[in-house]
Amino acid sequence: MTADIWDVIIVGAGISGLSAAHLLRKRDAKLRILILEAKDRVGGRTVSAEIPAANGVDRWDFGGQWVGSTQTHVLELIKELGLEIYPQYNTGKKVLHLGEATSKVRVYRSSIPALSPIVLLDFTQLLWKFDRLCGTVCIEDPSKTPRAKEFDSMTLHSYLEQHACTAEIKEQIGVCSRAVFGIEPSQMSFLFFLMYAAAAGGLLALLESTPGGAQEFKIKGGTQQLSECLAEGVGWKNVRLGSAVMAIWQDSEWARVTTSSDTFLCRAVIVTCPPHLAAKIHYQPALPSMREFLTQNMPSGHMIKFVITYHTDFWKERGFSGEIVAGPSTDCPFCVTFDATSHKGNAALVGFISAQQAYHWSTKEPGERRDAVVSSLVRYLGPEAATFIHYEEKDWGKEDYNGGCPVNVMAPGLLTYYHPSLRKPCGRIHWAGTETATQWCGYISGAIQAGQRAALEVLAEVHYNALTAEEQEALKHSETVENPPKDTPSFKPLFLFTRKSVVLTVLTASAVVLLVKNPSTMRGFKELTNFCMLFCTSTVAMAC
Amino acid sequence: MTADIWDVIIVGAGISGLSAAHLLRKRDAKLRILILEAKDRVGGRTVSAEIPAANGVDRWDFGGQWVGSTQTHVLELIKELGLEIYPQYNTGKKVLHLGEATSKVRVYRSSIPALSPIVLLDFTQLLWKFDRLCGTVCIEDPSKTPRAKEFDSMTLHSYLEQHACTAEIKEQIGVCSRAVFGIEPSQMSFLFFLMYAAAAGGLLALLESTPGGAQEFKIKGGTQQLSECLAEGVGWKNVRLGSAVMAIWQDSEWARVTTSSDTFLCRAVIVTCPPHLAAKIHYQPALPSMREFLTQNMPSGHMIKFVITYHTDFWKERGFSGEIVAGPSTDCPFCVTFDATSHKGNAALVGFISAQQAYHWSTKEPGERRDAVVSSLVRYLGPEAATFIHYEEKDWGKEDYNGGCPVNVMAPGLLTYYHPSLRKPCGRIHWAGTETATQWCGYISGAIQAGQRAALEVLAEVHYNALTAEEQEALKHSETVENPPKDTPSFKPLFLFTRKSVVLTVLTASAVVLLVKNPSTMRGFKELTNFCMLFCTSTVAMAC
Repeated sequence: MTADIWDVIIVGAGISGLSAAHLLRKRDAKLRILILEAKDRVGGRTVSAEIPAANGVDRWDFGGQWVGSTQTHVLELIKELGLEIYPQYNTGKKVLHLGEATSKVRVYRSSIPALSPIVLLDFTQLLWKFDRLCGTVCIEDPSKTPRAKEFDSMTLHSYLEQHACTAEIKEQIGVCSRAVFGIEPSQMSFLFFLMYAAAAGGLLALLESTPGGAQEFKIKGGTQQLSECLAEGVGWKNVRLGSAVMAIWQDSEWARVTTSSDTFLCRAVIVTCPPHLAAKIHYQPALPSMREFLTQNMPSGHMIKFVITYHTDFWKERGFSGEIVAGPSTDCPFCVTFDATSHKGNAALVGFISAQQAYHWSTKEPGERRDAVVSSLVRYLGPEAATFIHYEEKDWGKEDYNGGCPVNVMAPGLLTYYHPSLRKPCGRIHWAGTETATQWCGYISGAIQAGQRAALEVLAEVHYNALTAEEQEALKHSETVENPPKDTPSFKPLFLFTRKSVVLTVLTASAVVLLVKNPSTMRGFKELTNFCMLFCTSTVAMAC
Repeated sequence: MTADIWDVIIVGAGISGLSAAHLLRKRDAKLRILILEAKDRVGGRTVSAEIPAANGVDRWDFGGQWVGSTQTHVLELIKELGLEIYPQYNTGKKVLHLGEATSKVRVYRSSIPALSPIVLLDFTQLLWKFDRLCGTVCIEDPSKTPRAKEFDSMTLHSYLEQHACTAEIKEQIGVCSRAVFGIEPSQMSFLFFLMYAAAAGGLLALLESTPGGAQEFKIKGGTQQLSECLAEGVGWKNVRLGSAVMAIWQDSEWARVTTSSDTFLCRAVIVTCPPHLAAKIHYQPALPSMREFLTQNMPSGHMIKFVITYHTDFWKERGFSGEIVAGPSTDCPFCVTFDATSHKGNAALVGFISAQQAYHWSTKEPGERRDAVVSSLVRYLGPEAATFIHYEEKDWGKEDYNGGCPVNVMAPGLLTYYHPSLRKPCGRIHWAGTETATQWCGYISGAIQAGQRAALEVLAEVHYNALTAEEQEALKHSETVENPPKDTPSFKPLFLFTRKSVVLTVLTASAVVLLVKNPSTMRGFKELTNFCMLFCTSTVAMAC
């Protein structure tokens, strides 16, 4: 039995679990740490694979792929592991196709979408509202946010119905929701949406590939290397693949972790898998009912990610950046694409079929889906798109031991009633995974932050002296509050706020000038009224 | 291995599973049917227990307890099993306490709550809207309901914010949501709410203890007898208690059902447990991702049910019915109580601590909770309430292999995208449980209907000739439509509609008369304006 006794068992060899193991080993190399992973690989929701490319084969990410300059946890890890990053290509024309299949396809160059002045004004005032509300969110305990109950009682969709004035902007936010969460605005609590954006520094940070944005850099060679390097450091012998955890039983002395073939004893467990998978484990004693109610209602997004390789990056030659945004009623299967040319220069595009588009397209034959993707690329980028080298996709809804990507969101009501169970340990069980992060929740960086936080919790229990004096102090403080944010600072003013305020002021002023110069863009009295209302709203919002 | 081979395995010995087994055995006594139940008892979300009472001990229901005269499936079963029903006592004064702890406690006698004329008018117009919308719901496929996407994109809370004019009515519907679903209006899709009400014949049917209402009758001796009698008929040797199903694997020939100690082979499986528990089973091949996304987002209600016994039914002597309705900010832990005097005459009250009240009170010590209940009963019914014989409660959130009661609801977006997976068989696996019912979904009667429908599906596969000619015809028809409603008629006009229309017309007229006679009830111009608006709305609604 001695061989089966460990100090810490980590459930899940994704980035969160391996980051936890990494920190534990750094603090005490003698700690016996076992990582149990259900899949036959490490990486969780990051996976990189080789596919045919212009210069033979090359490697692309089919899960999480981007990092940004404000994502301190992942940038530190990248540096520590000696990996390199390179910027997301975003120069050139962008394509925007909202409305019906026959609606006009718009092309623009700046970071401001090609929308009519009135729609732009609507966008302005809405983003302003989002940013102001994000600034009020208490990320550690969202129920303490002003108007928390009100915002958690409605879906993002309902908020848009009340606060967006134009159909285009409602559709545009719908695309954002699909691209960021893999979920429809109708499925998500508005307070959760605000919290998620606040944890990233603001909504625009989630959407942009410019500095500070979530899509700023890629890792040369792919993000799965993070997990592979961490597993190497922890020791592959301590990582057991194909070992799905079925049950965790606790008594006064041990936690007993059971897979279909083995049972292990340990002092502490860190569960890192997404909430809906953590809910499938059988626990004895049963988890507090609040925890069960929480995990019953955190649906995972649904994304099919594809990479399509080409002999040349013809879109760049045509002046396109590779960024295409398409609404769900355009007949286009994807919601967004980006340039995915590798650091070795192999030309490719990456795109996402997401939420209601995934719902519709995931039941089709792979060939039909591929043809629809290619057909849309031809429409938006030119006939060269038809002559591709290879099309490869991954439907995360069908991935064993995931069943969805990129993140589990919260349905309305959860943050009001059950959020405290998200990170609160249950006896010897600690909770990690990117959903439990308070900085860049839902991202690779959040997965690391969450893993490190859980590791510190475990050290506080099994090896208190391995904590730094600062961590011990933070722990004392956290024990006096209900929901300890162990390694996270309290909410800081949004770094984007000032910059955005300038952008939005300029944008509003520009729109007004544009409108005065081009009265023909106003199609009637109703639009004029809407415009005046919007302008007033924007101005008032900015004055506040 | 021969002993381990069965024709049909049913997961769950609740009323749905046992009803399925009952129908299968009636059609073919030779069918080898095994029922695997995780708990150490049959009955699922119905359980009856003896507690001390005025005449020694008596038996009360601590789960589902009521049946109604329009619940044909359960009434037929009660008749067949030779059980008896008796009416819910509802004569006398009712108590209504909304607002704060210091708000006025209102007492009334009719079926119309003791609310001010303006609030009553608001109630009138809102119920009218609910009833009209219920009449448009396609229960078998809610996505075909007019404005389905709109209603499924908002919570019930959001609909109330838009369509209820007074705080009292929003609070009143909140109490209804807690009492019926064990869930807050913020946690539920408005379309799901409409579908659920439509499946019962209208919203008022869910709320009332008058003829046709959900709380019309009780079963002498308790509802668990239904399951016990059915298990007796099926044969206790075919019901294995303490056998939680861990995995269901399917191949071309067999379904292989595994518990922690045994493996069984069969031709067909009927899974009857609530969706969040069905999601905990490991399936091979994996279920379609649509099914997984569905069960990730169907949270269970949270109810603590209590029964308190007394030497006498003192409330009747004081002219009270025993019905108390209390809002969540009144300091009262329960949302509703009813008289629960047994058919043997042992005096008792039954009540429900539900949703946000359960969230708050479930973490308290049992003694503290009991004292708070008794203290509220004293406040509402008189000092005699303090001298009780026994207080017994059941927190369904803490019940192993349930983790919630009375029903799993649907969060926004589910009905739009994932509803078809609710009843659609997955290979040899068929789905039952009250959540899959189309008549009285969420009730005992719905559990029976769902079990019978699944049994017919299985017969069509393993023993086609056991179906009646009518059923075979229905099957042929159902194969031509995407979502076969095998034994349910298409939607009928709401039976309550005509009756309610009379009640509501009278109610509105009465309110107007009352108002004209008592202008002092109007506290100012604002209320007058609201009143006029409401009156117009009600009149227009009725004229439509």
